[in-house]
Amino acid sequence: MSAMYFVAAGAVLALLFAATMFARVKKEPQGTPQMAKISAAVSNGATAYLKRQYKGVAIFFAVVFVILLIMAFLGFLSFFTPFAFLTGGFFSGLSGFIGMRTATMANCRTANAASGSLNKGLRVAFSAGSVMGFTVVGLGLLDLSIWYFFLHFWYTAIDPVASQEILIQNITSNLLTFGMGASSMALFARVGGGIFTKAADVGADLVGKVEAGIPEDDPRNPAVIADNVGDNVGDVAGMGADLYESYVSSIVSTSALAVAAGFGMQGVGVPMLLAALGVLCSIVGTFFVKTKEGASQKNLLTALRTGTYISSVLIAICAWFAVHWLLPAEHATGVFIAVISGLAAGVIIGALTEYYTSDSYSPTKKLSASSETGSATVIISGLSLGMLSTVAPVVIVGISVLLSYFCSGGAEDFNMGLYGVGVSAVGMLSTLGITLATDAYGPIADNAGGIAEMTHMPAQVRQRTDALDSLGNTTAATGKGFAIGSAALTALALIASYIDKVHQIDPDIVLDLSITNPTTLIGLFIGGMLPFLFAALTMDAVGKAAQSIVVEVRRQFKEIKGLMEGKAEPDYASCVDMCTRSAQKLMLAPALIAVIVPIVVGLILGVEGVAGLLAGTTVTGFVLAVMMANSGGAWDNAKKYIESGAHGGKGSDCHKAAVVGDTVGDPFKDTSGPSINILIKLTSMVSIVFAGLVVAVHLL
Amino acid sequence: MSAMYFVAAGAVLALLFAATMFARVKKEPQGTPQMAKISAAVSNGATAYLKRQYKGVAIFFAVVFVILLIMAFLGFLSFFTPFAFLTGGFFSGLSGFIGMRTATMANCRTANAASGSLNKGLRVAFSAGSVMGFTVVGLGLLDLSIWYFFLHFWYTAIDPVASQEILIQNITSNLLTFGMGASSMALFARVGGGIFTKAADVGADLVGKVEAGIPEDDPRNPAVIADNVGDNVGDVAGMGADLYESYVSSIVSTSALAVAAGFGMQGVGVPMLLAALGVLCSIVGTFFVKTKEGASQKNLLTALRTGTYISSVLIAICAWFAVHWLLPAEHATGVFIAVISGLAAGVIIGALTEYYTSDSYSPTKKLSASSETGSATVIISGLSLGMLSTVAPVVIVGISVLLSYFCSGGAEDFNMGLYGVGVSAVGMLSTLGITLATDAYGPIADNAGGIAEMTHMPAQVRQRTDALDSLGNTTAATGKGFAIGSAALTALALIASYIDKVHQIDPDIVLDLSITNPTTLIGLFIGGMLPFLFAALTMDAVGKAAQSIVVEVRRQFKEIKGLMEGKAEPDYASCVDMCTRSAQKLMLAPALIAVIVPIVVGLILGVEGVAGLLAGTTVTGFVLAVMMANSGGAWDNAKKYIESGAHGGKGSDCHKAAVVGDTVGDPFKDTSGPSINILIKLTSMVSIVFAGLVVAVHLL
Repeated sequence: MSAMYFVAAGAVLALLFAATMFARVKKEPQGTPQMAKISAAVSNGATAYLKRQYKGVAIFFAVVFVILLIMAFLGFLSFFTPFAFLTGGFFSGLSGFIGMRTATMANCRTANAASGSLNKGLRVAFSAGSVMGFTVVGLGLLDLSIWYFFLHFWYTAIDPVASQEILIQNITSNLLTFGMGASSMALFARVGGGIFTKAADVGADLVGKVEAGIPEDDPRNPAVIADNVGDNVGDVAGMGADLYESYVSSIVSTSALAVAAGFGMQGVGVPMLLAALGVLCSIVGTFFVKTKEGASQKNLLTALRTGTYISSVLIAICAWFAVHWLLPAEHATGVFIAVISGLAAGVIIGALTEYYTSDSYSPTKKLSASSETGSATVIISGLSLGMLSTVAPVVIVGISVLLSYFCSGGAEDFNMGLYGVGVSAVGMLSTLGITLATDAYGPIADNAGGIAEMTHMPAQVRQRTDALDSLGNTTAATGKGFAIGSAALTALALIASYIDKVHQIDPDIVLDLSITNPTTLIGLFIGGMLPFLFAALTMDAVGKAAQSIVVEVRRQFKEIKGLMEGKAEPDYASCVDMCTRSAQKLMLAPALIAVIVPIVVGLILGVEGVAGLLAGTTVTGFVLAVMMANSGGAWDNAKKYIESGAHGGKGSDCHKAAVVGDTVGDPFKDTSGPSINILIKLTSMVSIVFAGLVVAVHLL
Repeated sequence: MSAMYFVAAGAVLALLFAATMFARVKKEPQGTPQMAKISAAVSNGATAYLKRQYKGVAIFFAVVFVILLIMAFLGFLSFFTPFAFLTGGFFSGLSGFIGMRTATMANCRTANAASGSLNKGLRVAFSAGSVMGFTVVGLGLLDLSIWYFFLHFWYTAIDPVASQEILIQNITSNLLTFGMGASSMALFARVGGGIFTKAADVGADLVGKVEAGIPEDDPRNPAVIADNVGDNVGDVAGMGADLYESYVSSIVSTSALAVAAGFGMQGVGVPMLLAALGVLCSIVGTFFVKTKEGASQKNLLTALRTGTYISSVLIAICAWFAVHWLLPAEHATGVFIAVISGLAAGVIIGALTEYYTSDSYSPTKKLSASSETGSATVIISGLSLGMLSTVAPVVIVGISVLLSYFCSGGAEDFNMGLYGVGVSAVGMLSTLGITLATDAYGPIADNAGGIAEMTHMPAQVRQRTDALDSLGNTTAATGKGFAIGSAALTALALIASYIDKVHQIDPDIVLDLSITNPTTLIGLFIGGMLPFLFAALTMDAVGKAAQSIVVEVRRQFKEIKGLMEGKAEPDYASCVDMCTRSAQKLMLAPALIAVIVPIVVGLILGVEGVAGLLAGTTVTGFVLAVMMANSGGAWDNAKKYIESGAHGGKGSDCHKAAVVGDTVGDPFKDTSGPSINILIKLTSMVSIVFAGLVVAVHLL
């Protein structure tokens, strides 16, 4: 119980820090009135989008809420479940919303600060990113604390003499389900935002750059505001909602495992204390993110990395004391190794992502060189780069899972091993505050560059924002690596909690989850196919949505007189509106798949098939997501590398070939790829929530 | 034992039919001396390539042979294993070689026949394809018979009073290992041939079409012969070696399962009788492949399909009687359903492949339309088409496995279920003679078109060969669907035989193959990543090999005087030689991965990890292979559809965009995609052969 006070303190600390950062960013001058105007347009567009999205999502939540209520009445679920579902969705959405509001406020301020110096620009953009990072962490811990205290009060009132262990079991089994709400919200935010951003991007480029021959981010392009809005709704709000879920779920599920593993209340304290300490270490790390004028891209990356690495080292040290304080000596070192293995896996996957996607290293340089023989070779090389980049993360996650499982006693007791794996995921995500800050900083810098371009600021300013922005691709890829890495790391725990839930419902059920059981194997096949289906639908959605923007931009160029001469203003809002509507319509099919497939497979193949489905989705999903994120990031940076002067520079044939790669990479890295980890987690959550139904049907 | 006489009879029948078809094709006139000359050049090039490849492969086989001998000395394997390995490789290679020789002989004859009428062209190309189809089937059954009779003689001599069941168990356990030889040969043929064909294709196009501006298949292009050689070594020899292995393995493994399932010698007879009857039904089917002049593409496809469908219906009828004759009534119907489910799965996957890749249907038409917005959208749409096309095959294979497992008694006895799954794979491959004929016909028609172009035959002839050729993409995709479908269908049997082998070695070993066992799960992850790594390496290999051809073709254009004016001849042989050398060098890495990874995973993670590895490789491999084959086929046909006049026709911007898709599709459909099923099977075989070593190391 006392560990919960740490969590509450962590929540307050994180939210206070986020508020401070927010105030600091807000204090910065907005720049010229024109800059403020554009920033306001982006902000309004983003808010309009999110309002619409939340409205659409509200219907979904209402429907699922009613279904869950009915299932609670039928005795399949506890009555807290439907409400936990709602709050999970609410806080996840709120995290994204606050991050997005900050980002749209910070864009003009970053551009303005960059006109002072590179370091000032970096500080503003990074501070704004920190707001997002610490809001996610803070709200997550807050949500956790509120529910915890409420449920503790409730269950103590019902049964005052229950042991702490029983109490914590009751509490965590309820808490687990709010992951489903958070996942659903995250999926809509990621997929919807991803469709929005890429439809606007592709639409703006195809008609503006290619057909009309005006530069990127030109204010005459009607889709240019939508493009900037997209960065915020997809990469900021979507990412925030996503990692909110990962973060909270990893803490809750590890707490639940502590009891089963026999570590008792002390074991429950470990993930909570780690999370709280992580907030502190992340805050310390943020102070080390600074650079000097004339810094190269590599220096800038080092600046961001320094912050993350310092936080990681600090939390590693803290973890040693925390674990040894809470756990008996014979387990402490093992659990500590688990923490470190997760933390290290996150850092190494991040570094590898950087290696594969940054143009400072040979893979992306070689990819740029492949543009010499045309766009086809750019595509082939990019796909193969992405595929190759999956090897190391798989091996690293594998080592990390096995280390944390066996070091924390998995050989003797399955649940002890599982607890270790859970702790390693908490370790990986403990520095989320700063990791997410470096991630969210990317789209802010991108927006700042757009504003600098649109308001015709001096070339030097644009150069600085470009330097900040091109890092964004790499840090974004790193963030995606964290998101998918933590999903892979917790795969075992997710499947185990499903099986656990089934055993809770029917203790006598005999399950054969062996891969030689044909039912499990077929589940595995269907699960393995699911991410491909999901990626196909989301990529198609981007194509369709972009098509509607193309038509609208063409219409405006034709019908609005004086637009090309700069005498009339384009109708930015209609493009934003159109993107919004397309995204809302087209995100439904992929989202429903994540919800319906596990239920249908459960009803037909039963529990064994669902377990196979979950394993298959995780395995293929992990590999496909890493590939898509890294191919996409590398294509984008290969193009930027050419734009910086290599292989003939901007406008050359090589550049044109690289642009094709970049366009293919857009839905890869910003729509399909990063949604896959949510697909993985949502299918697990849905399986757990509907386990009662599946078991009941198969007992008939 | 008596069933073996059927097999021997089937072998003789198939080989006689192949010989008859060979004689018929050979009797056809070669056309003009120029046609004969080009055909000879292609034939010599292909022979030179295969000789070189066999030399390289011989070293690999020698090394593995010695390793196997050592392992036999150490008691891990029977002494027949190394020799079975050799004969498997030999017959697999021979199948490919004969098919390839026939194909290179038939190309000019097909072109010449097409100048008579479309039907004549079809008959010659299809007859040549039949030689390949029935050679594979005939040699497979021959190999099986020889080993069977020899081992029967041997084991009877050792222990004259052993029961038939023990005898068959001894025999089949030895036979299983020749699958490893056949798989190794197939992998080299597929990967090496695939690299060769696409390097030549891409190299010829990039310099000839794009830089020098001369048409495709122009005799002045030094790489044009290599391009035609490639079709034969990749699509004919590689495919033959591949399916040889699938065919033989499915029969042997099902026979082995019959004993374990308690069906006794009668059960052993079922797959053998089915295979023998399949030869007969396939031969009957070939007589229905004909068309009339002026047939549309759809008519032509119908002509080919009619043959396959008639064979399928015939074998279904025969199967009913065969199964009821051999098995007791209570099992007969169940096993019959298993046969039908496999047969139907093959036919339906074939039809679906056609749906996704033929330009008669909407997916490929839509893909062509996406060229209106440039090459990036062609790539995105093609990838998403391929991903979407994986859904149905997964579901169909799933239904087929579950049907055959449970109908043949899997619920009571695991081995009975496995036997059913094995029988369904035999059912799917029973009509391989004709399926493979329709597949091998494609590259022959392609070559014929090339010869018609190079020898400036009348436009009408080229039109006819084009009509024949564009079908080839669809039939080739169908063949690949069969190859990968049968691999997925037998996944369960392959994993089960591995586990079986482990239990033979150490009956006391306790295995937890549950997906909640972290070791198995990590194996699953590594296995899931393997096809991605393999695809990355093979795609890279094509890129590198193509680069060397580009350099060579450029050199010849520059250095050989009078080449462009048609006064001097290019040095075709040097391009063939260069492709050969590149292919030989670059195929090593991907091939070694298939051999080394399962051994390394076994040594580190043990049996449970290997089982996970096999399941993971099969699941991801199946999905990835289907996607790559279908994306590639659809891109090729979308380009051909535009060339036939849609979206601006040849030379339009849409055409250029579609060419990019086609080029990306080349390594997809002809190198990486079709090699994946061999990867799946080779990893299983290697795991089985090295099981003794893995178990011994983990017992230490």
